Amino acid sequence: MDGAGKPPQHNDIYAVIDLGSNSFHMLMVKVVGGSVQVIGRVKRKVRLAAGLNDSLVLSKQAMTRGWECLALFAERLQDIPAANIRIVGTATLRLARNVKTFLVEAETILGQPIQVISGEEEARIIYLGVAHTSNCDSNRLVIDIGGASTEIVVGQGFQPILLSSLNMGCVTFLERYFGNNELSEANFNAAITAAEHEIRTISEQYLTQGWQNAVGASGTVQAMQEILVGQGKDEVITLPRLEAIMQQALACGHMDQLNLPGLAQERKQVFPSGLAILIALFRVLNISGMTLSGGALREGVLYSMLPQLQHQDVRARTLQSMMVRYYIDQQHAERVADMAATLASQLHQQWNLASFEGLAMLRSGALLHELGLLIEYKNHHHHGAYIISHAELPGFTRAQQQLLMALVYNHRADIHKEILSKQTMTSVLLAVRLTRLLRLSVILSMRRRYEVLPEVQITAQAEALTLNLPDGWLDHHPLMRAELEQEVVYQHQAGWQLSIE
Amino acid sequence: MDGAGKPPQHNDIYAVIDLGSNSFHMLMVKVVGGSVQVIGRVKRKVRLAAGLNDSLVLSKQAMTRGWECLALFAERLQDIPAANIRIVGTATLRLARNVKTFLVEAETILGQPIQVISGEEEARIIYLGVAHTSNCDSNRLVIDIGGASTEIVVGQGFQPILLSSLNMGCVTFLERYFGNNELSEANFNAAITAAEHEIRTISEQYLTQGWQNAVGASGTVQAMQEILVGQGKDEVITLPRLEAIMQQALACGHMDQLNLPGLAQERKQVFPSGLAILIALFRVLNISGMTLSGGALREGVLYSMLPQLQHQDVRARTLQSMMVRYYIDQQHAERVADMAATLASQLHQQWNLASFEGLAMLRSGALLHELGLLIEYKNHHHHGAYIISHAELPGFTRAQQQLLMALVYNHRADIHKEILSKQTMTSVLLAVRLTRLLRLSVILSMRRRYEVLPEVQITAQAEALTLNLPDGWLDHHPLMRAELEQEVVYQHQAGWQLSIE
Repeated sequence: MDGAGKPPQHNDIYAVIDLGSNSFHMLMVKVVGGSVQVIGRVKRKVRLAAGLNDSLVLSKQAMTRGWECLALFAERLQDIPAANIRIVGTATLRLARNVKTFLVEAETILGQPIQVISGEEEARIIYLGVAHTSNCDSNRLVIDIGGASTEIVVGQGFQPILLSSLNMGCVTFLERYFGNNELSEANFNAAITAAEHEIRTISEQYLTQGWQNAVGASGTVQAMQEILVGQGKDEVITLPRLEAIMQQALACGHMDQLNLPGLAQERKQVFPSGLAILIALFRVLNISGMTLSGGALREGVLYSMLPQLQHQDVRARTLQSMMVRYYIDQQHAERVADMAATLASQLHQQWNLASFEGLAMLRSGALLHELGLLIEYKNHHHHGAYIISHAELPGFTRAQQQLLMALVYNHRADIHKEILSKQTMTSVLLAVRLTRLLRLSVILSMRRRYEVLPEVQITAQAEALTLNLPDGWLDHHPLMRAELEQEVVYQHQAGWQLSIE
Repeated sequence: MDGAGKPPQHNDIYAVIDLGSNSFHMLMVKVVGGSVQVIGRVKRKVRLAAGLNDSLVLSKQAMTRGWECLALFAERLQDIPAANIRIVGTATLRLARNVKTFLVEAETILGQPIQVISGEEEARIIYLGVAHTSNCDSNRLVIDIGGASTEIVVGQGFQPILLSSLNMGCVTFLERYFGNNELSEANFNAAITAAEHEIRTISEQYLTQGWQNAVGASGTVQAMQEILVGQGKDEVITLPRLEAIMQQALACGHMDQLNLPGLAQERKQVFPSGLAILIALFRVLNISGMTLSGGALREGVLYSMLPQLQHQDVRARTLQSMMVRYYIDQQHAERVADMAATLASQLHQQWNLASFEGLAMLRSGALLHELGLLIEYKNHHHHGAYIISHAELPGFTRAQQQLLMALVYNHRADIHKEILSKQTMTSVLLAVRLTRLLRLSVILSMRRRYEVLPEVQITAQAEALTLNLPDGWLDHHPLMRAELEQEVVYQHQAGWQLSIE
């Protein structure tokens, strides 16, 4: 429509479209410095599932809402080469008996084929999306509560072991169990019971297989995590916490009155049905705790187009990409990380640093500590913290990201203890210990050379640290002496005892 | 001292050391993405000038303070190749009759030669430092008030025309005229009169030569600018403003009582003497207004080692480097800038956009608008604004930087008018006009292709804008229509009328 001849296309832009039961979503990305950079999103709440009647016929109105949305997507899509585009349809399109009618018109509008994927295929792709964006060394359970289906997967690494897709979702359950908009025990109980019933059809094999880690990939899980954060709790979703949230929702009485700290306006609509399904999953599958994944279906589809980004260790890929994107001196970052590991190895039993992945967080903080230099030198520790707190860091949970932010913020100059208190990844005591080791590692590595790193001994009596350097070494290193003396002052001002000998 | 054999050196790190009359300063940088990235600074207030007696003999104590500082520098310097190091000494070392004693020991400590530069050479290098970091199309006057000398230069582009160095500085004048620590009229008048006397020895040729632009490169000028900002004024230093600041200082009565909003603790000591010299310069040279330069002596020395960074248009170099460092899609940035120029060309007389470099600011905002995408998509306008407000942007004054920040912050989504009000570069009205044009340019260029940019006409009746698109064009561009309709709502919410026809 824009003149004769094929115009040049954006070979470096990739697009994924997800025709979900609740909303249609177009994601456009580029690859920058070895990781994905989102350059555009278009999203419309089409609520396709609401147009599916009991005979599984999709209404003309719902189809029209969908087509109107696709006309918007088509305008951007025509500039992207077909090989860089994937369009997938999920539960509602899977179920609709008149799906052909929708698809013929939809593919004409888009000028691209649409894949309506099976429930099992959806579960497989969701699992890949999680595997590409979340860190996990052991077996994991992945849950995704969609608009009209819920996917449940157990897998290890990039390999799914059990795959299921159940016909229950937060849009269909909303209409079925909360149609009167009441936040009543009766509605919640009916929804939970129905969900439990569905889940029991597959639960046995899952309980037999087992897992070490549970991850949730949907808006419902994100909403619960935001509520927990809004209440000052850590990020781990547990059954008692979900039941407490349900009690708070019950106290609101009606959807119009629903108002929980941390619950975003846009998530309210499908909140009670999603909560009911999640509670049922926790009860039947005996889930002890769950965190939010960094990706799901769209990411699974996207990474399948980007084989160069596939990496067994998601966290390592993220750290590597951050170092490239922000022009970090990688040799120096590794040097500081090595020094931090050396110091930590002398204290980690006494200081309990191996718990909560403390050593991995210390290493990550060391690798990223100079992130903010790209912006400006004087407050580069603050700039680095700003970047970490806003960036997407696949492989790190939100709480891990907060801890990293606190470490980078405090890696030099004045110590801000309130930042260490705000993170919820670990206790303030352990966050402080990591901070102190990182600060010393940065100073000791100051000259940016391996050959000149001193042989250091570090010992602790409770929280009082003593750093031992070789006899006479400081006499020949007056700048290091000055920096370490200044550091004694900084740590003292923060209430932490440090001696240099 | 760190083992046998020559260890590998950091060929990509450059160091400049400036042995000033007030402080010694070591700056270490790397070149990243076509511009300088500071990776380390060490600074000590050696106050060498205080050790120079009336017979121009430098005291042993002052020398020792200097040597101790150099021992700190030496520790880092040994890792940097000699070709990447420059060490310059200025006024006090120039004047000291026993300078040899100082230099022999100093060069032994550093293992590097020190250049004590003449006053004229210092003026020349300062001018280059300013030319490499500040934007100016016409003749400019450059002033640098040091600890023991003041350099005065007129030049054009990278070419100095008149060069002078006067034996007056904020440290020597402090001792001479504010020795009793009183902020009295007598002290100020004596200092101003003495400075005027010095300046008159060279003023005639300067007044004959003339200039369009005056730039100050020293801590004194920075302190005045910070005080003006602290008082909510714009960044331009004028004689009435300086005299008002002197009145406020007089009201404090004594150095111990000196407390002006915006005046940093570390600048207090040499504040009254610097102020007196600056007032004298304004009076004798008839300076109407002055802004702060981005660099001076150290930058002049540094850029002389980095010929690849020499660029006639400092601002263009900065924009280019920012685009590289933050992986900006440069073609798209240019496209948005072109669209902004097209819109502005239809309104610039009516909307007075050519004043205060409005068109250049609009173009710069367009080139940088996607800066924050590197951090994250959803709030990339905020991230871009964060980067701009903290980065060093040679070629832009502080107030221009604030305006750029406000434009990037408001280039999409909700409009925050308070950010536009806070900038002091231009009126809120003109800042709003630029913002509105930038927002429309970003939307119209959405598809990231030149071929599909619509032919647009824009007209204004006072502040009411009408955007005309070709007949029927929007019918074939539903996404653009949706985006423009949303934009009408955003601008309406901000109180700005916009129609699409």
